[in-house]
Amino acid sequence: MSGSIAARTGQPILVGVDGGGTRCRARARWRDGTPIGECITGTANILAGVEAARDNIVAAVEGALVEGGLGHADLGRCLVGLGLAGANIPDLSERFLAADLPFARTALEMDAWIACRGAHPDGNGAIAILGTGTAYVVQTGGVFVTVGGWGFHVGDQGSGAWLGHMALRQAALAHDALVEPTGLTDALLAQFDGKPDRIVTFCKTALPRDYGSFAPLVFERAAAGDAIADGILAEATRDIELALNRLVALGAARISLLGGLAPLYAERLSPEISAHIAPPAGDALDGALILAATLLPAEAPA
Amino acid sequence: MSGSIAARTGQPILVGVDGGGTRCRARARWRDGTPIGECITGTANILAGVEAARDNIVAAVEGALVEGGLGHADLGRCLVGLGLAGANIPDLSERFLAADLPFARTALEMDAWIACRGAHPDGNGAIAILGTGTAYVVQTGGVFVTVGGWGFHVGDQGSGAWLGHMALRQAALAHDALVEPTGLTDALLAQFDGKPDRIVTFCKTALPRDYGSFAPLVFERAAAGDAIADGILAEATRDIELALNRLVALGAARISLLGGLAPLYAERLSPEISAHIAPPAGDALDGALILAATLLPAEAPA
Repeated sequence: MSGSIAARTGQPILVGVDGGGTRCRARARWRDGTPIGECITGTANILAGVEAARDNIVAAVEGALVEGGLGHADLGRCLVGLGLAGANIPDLSERFLAADLPFARTALEMDAWIACRGAHPDGNGAIAILGTGTAYVVQTGGVFVTVGGWGFHVGDQGSGAWLGHMALRQAALAHDALVEPTGLTDALLAQFDGKPDRIVTFCKTALPRDYGSFAPLVFERAAAGDAIADGILAEATRDIELALNRLVALGAARISLLGGLAPLYAERLSPEISAHIAPPAGDALDGALILAATLLPAEAPA
Repeated sequence: MSGSIAARTGQPILVGVDGGGTRCRARARWRDGTPIGECITGTANILAGVEAARDNIVAAVEGALVEGGLGHADLGRCLVGLGLAGANIPDLSERFLAADLPFARTALEMDAWIACRGAHPDGNGAIAILGTGTAYVVQTGGVFVTVGGWGFHVGDQGSGAWLGHMALRQAALAHDALVEPTGLTDALLAQFDGKPDRIVTFCKTALPRDYGSFAPLVFERAAAGDAIADGILAEATRDIELALNRLVALGAARISLLGGLAPLYAERLSPEISAHIAPPAGDALDGALILAATLLPAEAPA
C-alpha cells in the first residue's frame, strides 16, 4: 500500500462528504477512481451548529484518509465535495466556508443536490425521497429545482409520517363508528388500549418518526385488502404521482425513488409514471465525489 | 327589590354555572324562574387547576347573587348546576367536589352536557359544536354520548383549525405547481410573502386558533367559486355530515348547530340532514339551571 501511496505523491485526493443530521459520511479516492477509504462520524447539521458540523466533517475526511494509509498531513491535498442540509441558506453556507477548513479546496451544495447527482451522474434526472418525510428534486441542464419538502405540517403527503398520522385519525373515526372499522383501525386502537384519548396523548408529543412507525402496518394491511389502509395509500399514491409528474414536466429524463418507502410505492405507481422510474446509478457520496471532481484543475496530471 | 327578597326567605336559589377555559359564567334565579342575576369571572378549567377553578366558580355565583340584591350570606341557599370541561375525568371531578364548596348542594356534569341540555330541555336531542374545534354530543332517554371531540391532531375534521391547515397545505402545493393556483392559494401565499418556508415557520408554533384564523377566507373564497376552497369545504362538509348522521343513528330527534361556523355550514348541508337541524331552545346556562333544578327536594314549597 505504501508503495502506491508514494507513487501518488503530490496527486490530489478527491473526497465526497454527505453531512446529515445524525451522521456524516466521507469517501476518499484517487483521481482515477481507486478507493482510499471511508469513514462515518456524528452530526454535520450546519443548521444546528456550524462549528460542530465542521469538526465532524474534518474528522470524517481524516478518518477516510487514515483507512487508506494516509493521515492528517494529507488534508491539505483534499478536494472536498460537500453535501449539507441548509447549504441553500446563504448566511449559513458563508459562515461554514469562512470557518477554518484544512482542505485544498471545498465545494458546497445541498444534501439533495449530491443525492440527485449520485443517482444521475450525467446531471439529468430527478430523485423522489420517500421516507419519514418526502422531498423531490430535479437536475437538468445544470439547473437544480426542488419540489415540496416542506415537512410534516405543511407537506410530506404520502410520507411515512403522513401515513401513520392518517391511520391514527381513521382509528379515532372507527372508534366513534363514523367509519367502518377494519383490521388496520382495530390493530391501531388495540395499541392504545381501545382509547382514542391515549392516541390524543401520543400525538401531543409525537415527532414525524413516531407517526412513521405505523406506516409499515398501513402497507401490510393494504396488501391484505384492508379498505381503510387501501384508501389512505390510494390518496398518498395520487399525491406522490402529482409530484412525480411535475418532475417530468420540469424535464427529468429519469426519476429514481429513494428512501425506505420507495420499493413499497414503486409497486403502486401507474404504468405511465413507472415508465420514468430508473434505479439510481450511485448514492449521495458518489454525487459528492462528482462535486469534488469539479475542483480538479483542468491541466492536472491524471 | 328587598321586599320580594324578604318574601322568599328560606327559599332555595337555583344557579347555573358554565365553567370554560377562558371564562366562567353564572346565572341565578328563583325556583319559579324569576331572574336574580348573572356574573362572568375568569377561567374555570379544572384540568388546569382545581383550586383556581373553584375560586372563579364561587366568585361567579356570588356575583350573580349580588346583582340581585343578595350576597355572600346566601351562598348556603344555592343549588348549583355546574358544567365543566374535564368533569368526565373521575379523579378531577372527585377532587373538585371534595374542595370546600359553600353551596347547599352541587351537581356536576361535562360542559357539553349542559350545552346539549340547554339546547334540548326535554333531554332528547344533539348538538354539533362547529368552531375552532368540533365536538358532537347526543342526549336521549337519559343517556349522554359524545362523538369525536379528539382535538386538532386526531379529529376536528371540518373545524376552523382543520380548514385553515388544509388551506395552507394547498398553498404550498400551489407554490410548487402541484395544484392549479386559485384566489385562495394566492391570497394565503401573499400573506407569507410568497414563501412556503414562512408557512413552515408559522406552523411550527401555530395553535388551532391560529390555523382557524384562515377559515373565514376559505368560506369567502368558496362563495366566490374558488375551486380549492370549494374542495376543502366539500370534504369538510362530508366529514361533518358523517358525524351528524351518526347522531341521528344514536337517536337524536333534533340537532342544534352551535359555534362560530354553524351558520356557514348550515347552508352547505344536504336536505336529508338539514331536516334534522333545529335551533337550540336555550344556551349552556339554561342547561346548567336544568341541572340545578334536579337538586330541588321534591317536597319543597314553590
